[in-house]
Amino acid sequence: MKKILVLGAGRSSAALIAYLLKACATNGWKLTVADAEEKLINGKLKSHPSGIPLIFDINNDTQRKREIGNHHLVISLLPPHLHIIAAKECLDLSVPFMTASYVSPEIQALDKDAKEKGLLILMESGLDPGIDHMSAMEEIDKIKAEGGSLTSFKSYTGGLVAPESDTNPWHYKISWNPRNVVLAGQGTVKYLENGIYKYVPYHRLFSRIENVAVDDAGRFEGYLNRDSLKYIDLYGLNGIDTFIRGTLRGEGYCKAWDCLVQLGLTDDSYTIDLPLDASFVNLLDAYLPAGTGSISERTCKYLGISPQSNEIKLMQWLGLFDSANKIKNLNSTPAQHLQSLLEEKWKLEVNDKDRIVMIHNFEYNIGNKLFSKTSSLVVNGDDQMNTAMAKTVGLPLGIAAKLLLEGKIKLTGVHVPISRELYYPILRELEQEGIIFKMKNQ
Amino acid sequence: MKKILVLGAGRSSAALIAYLLKACATNGWKLTVADAEEKLINGKLKSHPSGIPLIFDINNDTQRKREIGNHHLVISLLPPHLHIIAAKECLDLSVPFMTASYVSPEIQALDKDAKEKGLLILMESGLDPGIDHMSAMEEIDKIKAEGGSLTSFKSYTGGLVAPESDTNPWHYKISWNPRNVVLAGQGTVKYLENGIYKYVPYHRLFSRIENVAVDDAGRFEGYLNRDSLKYIDLYGLNGIDTFIRGTLRGEGYCKAWDCLVQLGLTDDSYTIDLPLDASFVNLLDAYLPAGTGSISERTCKYLGISPQSNEIKLMQWLGLFDSANKIKNLNSTPAQHLQSLLEEKWKLEVNDKDRIVMIHNFEYNIGNKLFSKTSSLVVNGDDQMNTAMAKTVGLPLGIAAKLLLEGKIKLTGVHVPISRELYYPILRELEQEGIIFKMKNQ
Repeated sequence: MKKILVLGAGRSSAALIAYLLKACATNGWKLTVADAEEKLINGKLKSHPSGIPLIFDINNDTQRKREIGNHHLVISLLPPHLHIIAAKECLDLSVPFMTASYVSPEIQALDKDAKEKGLLILMESGLDPGIDHMSAMEEIDKIKAEGGSLTSFKSYTGGLVAPESDTNPWHYKISWNPRNVVLAGQGTVKYLENGIYKYVPYHRLFSRIENVAVDDAGRFEGYLNRDSLKYIDLYGLNGIDTFIRGTLRGEGYCKAWDCLVQLGLTDDSYTIDLPLDASFVNLLDAYLPAGTGSISERTCKYLGISPQSNEIKLMQWLGLFDSANKIKNLNSTPAQHLQSLLEEKWKLEVNDKDRIVMIHNFEYNIGNKLFSKTSSLVVNGDDQMNTAMAKTVGLPLGIAAKLLLEGKIKLTGVHVPISRELYYPILRELEQEGIIFKMKNQ
Repeated sequence: MKKILVLGAGRSSAALIAYLLKACATNGWKLTVADAEEKLINGKLKSHPSGIPLIFDINNDTQRKREIGNHHLVISLLPPHLHIIAAKECLDLSVPFMTASYVSPEIQALDKDAKEKGLLILMESGLDPGIDHMSAMEEIDKIKAEGGSLTSFKSYTGGLVAPESDTNPWHYKISWNPRNVVLAGQGTVKYLENGIYKYVPYHRLFSRIENVAVDDAGRFEGYLNRDSLKYIDLYGLNGIDTFIRGTLRGEGYCKAWDCLVQLGLTDDSYTIDLPLDASFVNLLDAYLPAGTGSISERTCKYLGISPQSNEIKLMQWLGLFDSANKIKNLNSTPAQHLQSLLEEKWKLEVNDKDRIVMIHNFEYNIGNKLFSKTSSLVVNGDDQMNTAMAKTVGLPLGIAAKLLLEGKIKLTGVHVPISRELYYPILRELEQEGIIFKMKNQ
């Protein structure tokens, strides 16, 4: 009897666990769900006959060895820095390992040993990274099979909010790690445009946006992801002129977010010294030169924007100019203050539906003729628990797990889902789950 | 017979060594000048009878112990990260130690042991930090003695170029470490204004400048130094409303430098990928969105500045828009590319005179009456070797060394020159060397 071990039963695990429980029931397998919190496990397993709850501590060596050794596959939903502990144990004990997280250098270093043991370590198999790789590679392989040569690839993904739940002027609610929302894009961004490597410093990132329209979803703003360049080689696109990966936000978001960046409010590198009983007005004041007028007037003047601008309205809506809006935990970085505010203001309510939007644009030559096509995806969540985010992150992992236990994946070593052996069956089954890309020639 | 050991015979050592040789001749002392390069030593000692040349390696344990143990005082002009090696050895061997560098946490940690051994470790005793502390503290002590209470202290220093050698539109030539010129202000700046702690992110630093006029020197721009706040306590000014320390540049410099910051050219965190045979036009292109027009037109458009602006003229003068201006070492960070260009364009020529400008502004109450005064300093260099920078960095150290060996300094532990015991005799002797502050009541 095959046994699967899922590490972590947090927010994004619901769809994965539900899918695996069904697969277990069909195939006579068992699913162990491991977490430090019993409540989280039981909320996901719901006493399903194929499920086994496990109170688990990844840093308990004895327990980790025993449990991993006792399973046929491990899927980690732990925080990314903990994957390597589980992956090394899996390698030691010859158990395959999967996550939705980026390949770190430490994980990549396991490639040779995993190949020698005939073992698969499958990374980047959620939404982004994950479904983006699979859907892009399917089209790229098709274009190449037609004799086409790609000149441009642009890909954008956004974890947003469905129109019926879009109740705030930022057009955004938080469906994933809020800390990552605040720190998004910090560092220097690299991309390729018209054959030239381009670099964008963080303080320019949110003013260098692209307008992106997506069928059945509307118009968005796309800002650049941190490092697109490593995927050029991985996708087999060496020599391509333009290669861009980015993130989608609702219209108006980036310009207003840029104001917060310009002020310095997204900085996570130091604890800011604020007076006792400080409000967000005190926080703003720390970033403005001394001057007369209200705090919003001084902000307008400093940023060179109009008091009637959408940016100011969005900042106002957050309560940044409200002296009754108190700072919660004085001993924090500016980014932490901002995060605590956004977690409250951008909360996904119980009946809110989130929405995933993804779009790839391909430009390519066949002979001397230029072609262009897009493939796009829109997925809505059901509610605060069964989010589109949880479905699109969890289902590809669940399907990959099932395929592996069925003996349908023969790859060994460290992989991301860019080969047809992986993407083809996973995308077909995702379609049956309602995750369907729409193709359009332009 | 007293013996002084100077570690480092580089650019900024000329005035210090010349002063100490005179003091040695008068008092029958000896001066050992230690460096890895014999040529540098001989260029400074010039076969003076009181001088002893020493080929030296600070990392050679045997040599370091022997030489430090054989002297009565060590003055380090080594790169700042090496001071701690020399300072620890001095503490072990009970030899006093002096530098012109900032007190690091490692040096501060030696305070207790130095006090127990009755030993002085004197830091921040050059120009800035150094003369700025001494001259500010003399006035602050005077104001307090008159019953005054300070409400505002602003202090600016610039290592600039004398008017007769000011031959470029940036009004700047390099008289100190060029790397520090390029990286100036990186990180977050903190200061105190009207009782509020203010924070300025790097990308805003060079657009938040103050206009500063200095008697006998002209008009300047002042940008903020990184961390002013630690000196409030040190100067005994707790409760002051405004406390600012900054750096002076010629008019127009900061706005043009801000363009380089906005583009991303001062980033030292990654190696940039440029084509073979790249010019500075390729470097700029990496920071501009794709577009039509010349590189200077695209730069104007991106930065939102006019082609007739002074900033564009200054960038043009640097050769940033000249495709014949080739990149020297491809495998570098953008900041390193910029540095190599500036070292050439902003070179202090053999007969060029540099200039030091310093100004303090004090505002204070006596009773209910508000007073304001400034103290300012202008020092010109003689030539490329005997720079104002070398004089103002080296002479305070030399004078402090002499006073110590004469038994006139009784302080023990880690100190910066803020007590009258240090600043009074040093400032008086600096006056005899032509380094004279001008006082003005306003």
